[in-house]
Amino acid sequence: MRELGSAIRDLVIANRILARENVVDAYGHVSMRHPLNPERYLLSCSRSPELVGRSDILEFNFEGEPVDGDPRPPYLERFIHGAIYEARPDINAVVHSHADDVLPFSITSTPMRPAIHNASGMGLHVPVWDMRDSFGDTSLLVATVEHGRDMARTLAGASVVLMRGHGFTAAGRTLLEAVGVSVYLPKNARVLMNAMRLGEVKALSPGEIERIRTGPHAHDLRRAWEYWTRRAGCEDLA
Amino acid sequence: MRELGSAIRDLVIANRILARENVVDAYGHVSMRHPLNPERYLLSCSRSPELVGRSDILEFNFEGEPVDGDPRPPYLERFIHGAIYEARPDINAVVHSHADDVLPFSITSTPMRPAIHNASGMGLHVPVWDMRDSFGDTSLLVATVEHGRDMARTLAGASVVLMRGHGFTAAGRTLLEAVGVSVYLPKNARVLMNAMRLGEVKALSPGEIERIRTGPHAHDLRRAWEYWTRRAGCEDLA
Amino acid sequence: MRELGSAIRDLVIANRILARENVVDAYGHVSMRHPLNPERYLLSCSRSPELVGRSDILEFNFEGEPVDGDPRPPYLERFIHGAIYEARPDINAVVHSHADDVLPFSITSTPMRPAIHNASGMGLHVPVWDMRDSFGDTSLLVATVEHGRDMARTLAGASVVLMRGHGFTAAGRTLLEAVGVSVYLPKNARVLMNAMRLGEVKALSPGEIERIRTGPHAHDLRRAWEYWTRRAGCEDLA
Amino acid sequence: MRELGSAIRDLVIANRILARENVVDAYGHVSMRHPLNPERYLLSCSRSPELVGRSDILEFNFEGEPVDGDPRPPYLERFIHGAIYEARPDINAVVHSHADDVLPFSITSTPMRPAIHNASGMGLHVPVWDMRDSFGDTSLLVATVEHGRDMARTLAGASVVLMRGHGFTAAGRTLLEAVGVSVYLPKNARVLMNAMRLGEVKALSPGEIERIRTGPHAHDLRRAWEYWTRRAGCEDLA
Repeated sequence: MRELGSAIRDLVIANRILARENVVDAYGHVSMRHPLNPERYLLSCSRSPELVGRSDILEFNFEGEPVDGDPRPPYLERFIHGAIYEARPDINAVVHSHADDVLPFSITSTPMRPAIHNASGMGLHVPVWDMRDSFGDTSLLVATVEHGRDMARTLAGASVVLMRGHGFTAAGRTLLEAVGVSVYLPKNARVLMNAMRLGEVKALSPGEIERIRTGPHAHDLRRAWEYWTRRAGCEDLA
Repeated sequence: MRELGSAIRDLVIANRILARENVVDAYGHVSMRHPLNPERYLLSCSRSPELVGRSDILEFNFEGEPVDGDPRPPYLERFIHGAIYEARPDINAVVHSHADDVLPFSITSTPMRPAIHNASGMGLHVPVWDMRDSFGDTSLLVATVEHGRDMARTLAGASVVLMRGHGFTAAGRTLLEAVGVSVYLPKNARVLMNAMRLGEVKALSPGEIERIRTGPHAHDLRRAWEYWTRRAGCEDLA
Repeated sequence: MRELGSAIRDLVIANRILARENVVDAYGHVSMRHPLNPERYLLSCSRSPELVGRSDILEFNFEGEPVDGDPRPPYLERFIHGAIYEARPDINAVVHSHADDVLPFSITSTPMRPAIHNASGMGLHVPVWDMRDSFGDTSLLVATVEHGRDMARTLAGASVVLMRGHGFTAAGRTLLEAVGVSVYLPKNARVLMNAMRLGEVKALSPGEIERIRTGPHAHDLRRAWEYWTRRAGCEDLA
Repeated sequence: MRELGSAIRDLVIANRILARENVVDAYGHVSMRHPLNPERYLLSCSRSPELVGRSDILEFNFEGEPVDGDPRPPYLERFIHGAIYEARPDINAVVHSHADDVLPFSITSTPMRPAIHNASGMGLHVPVWDMRDSFGDTSLLVATVEHGRDMARTLAGASVVLMRGHGFTAAGRTLLEAVGVSVYLPKNARVLMNAMRLGEVKALSPGEIERIRTGPHAHDLRRAWEYWTRRAGCEDLA
């Protein structure tokens, strides 16, 4: 069970980091696949990420039911997480965010493209999911298992899916990867929007993205985790 | 009278939240309809919202006169509040703000439109009030009962009215609703301005706004209130 | 001498306010006309405004010489202040700033115009001074009495002069007025730049500016002074 | 050895300043030429600049090998520093940064130009290095001596080189100069991007840049060092 305790601690730190780095505000959430049972995931009950502590972390099955029947209200949109863990065995962490700078790419036909080294974890192609296509007028929230699965189908094998007028969801092989993509995606959006106003943009090439993600000089996020943890005031937890 | 004490406490917290979230600066204010007397409203005397405490909250009638003759100077623009409570029995809280990002929509003919889920409380249509139309050259301030009533006529049944070259006023069924709209309207403005530079914008549909505001998965702001209260350093008050 | 002590205290607070509100950074300065001798002005020795304390405030004549021969290095650009006090008996405080958002209007031919109520203290017309016109290639700094006088001639009867590629200088009848204009000019610039990208801009009219500055509902900055003082951590000084 | 202790202290302060002023985040680094041995340079082991302390500073040769065989992992991109010290005997400090606002100029063909006084240390011409030109698809990181030397050839005699999709490197005659350029280059980028949207831009002239950098009224950064040191919470170190 030491592995579970360590996962919960890391998940609490990830919540605080995402709040400190302005990836989430009152809303947004982050989850991890359960380290001992791949059919479960860990996610806070319904609290703003900055306020999440160890005792808020609950265990859910892919249908979004709390495994131990905990009575505290869960996030309505927990179906985002279960659907991705179900569809993507390679994914072990998921972040859902409403960051301002990313949203313009979700409501226009201009594609989000990787323009800067630090954001290459987003991958070459970032699909946009408009739930109106499948469900007509809704509250825009991923409020059912079916909504989540539809979103996961649009995500397919990508790392990030934009959600029209709502936000984005990032899927990582590790918690650090999901957090890193989420921190740098808004920065990539800012750079890309400003660059497009200056002229023709030279984005990263497929070969560059591949090398940054998996080559011998792959982007090492461990230094960033130490830094973000300190900025979020979580040295005591770490 | 316990209900009054609780209303005053919430109003103080709302003042501090609006300051912390950059909705107001030295200027701007927030009021509540009196919980025991619908012909009165509660509003601070003339102080910057970040500095407002319980003892600053006064009771006003719709004409903007302090009910108990308190000698402290009131906000000049208190007429904004009285006029809306008078015209709109459904409204129980009002915020007046000068937030930067919203102002461009008040001085151009580009309409503010709801583009993101969190800001759907603003409604489908946001009217712009230019007091020059009724009053010619003024100080731009809502300095009389007549100014306030003219503004309330432009607001009509909407949730937000933009005030040309000056700011906006948001009207909510609850304090939480008025605060929530005020926090997310500037964010909606940023997203919309950036998106318009990228291309054609897909705004929220009337059906989506309706569902977000009143459907079974309506936007729940209580989680945000807990978060904003903590960020504003008001846990002790709450 | 109590009046002098009070002036020095206010000037120290103004330094800290301008730093806190991001009007100045390591550079920039603020002065007051001496309350007892209109041929002198008070200005810090060469320190960043955030660090200025009472003992840093020196007395200068219009030629920029420290009256009591204090050996601490003065700001190179003190000639800005003397030249304005010399040319404008109505002016009692001067702020010099390099705020980012204002600078684009100093290097293009797009005029800065008052677009929002809070910034009306800038006046209807904001001239741009390019010292290259009179002096050819220079360091861009107002480094001599002649530079200062040339700048003051471009300022003429206005409240603000933009300095090409360098910053702006604001002149106020009171310290509060000079500080207020300096805080709200960058905000006006942001709103104006964003609005110009949305379409035709409706700026304040001459009659509106006049009423905001001198009418019965003139813009009252005292509430802001209390707020800014608190934010700058200067309650103890006030 | 007192000179070495003082250099190390200044380098620690520079790390903290660059973090506080948002020039670097989890990534980026700053080095100094060794004060006693011009064939060596001082650079932290692999830590985020905000967290760097005296004991993290190591000594490297131009090939990027730690002189005393310290086992702590070095920054992968230390080759940036060695290559510049090798090629440019006039340079004594180097900063590498990924600051958002500068990046658009690295991925478009719009040249970065000095538009504001404070940023004149960047020089008249800022070259862009695209390592794809020499090395094809890479991880974009300066991961070998050859990468570093290629970058230094593009830098040539300039003060700043932009790195496509990655960031910039600034080279200074002194640590203060390298830090100053790095702080004001993002500000110059913001002003330039905004100005270009307003119309034709009047940039600094070659004669102005020359005078600001070396004339009798050359830009004095010592006041800024005191201010930045205080903001970074390093008074105790200074």
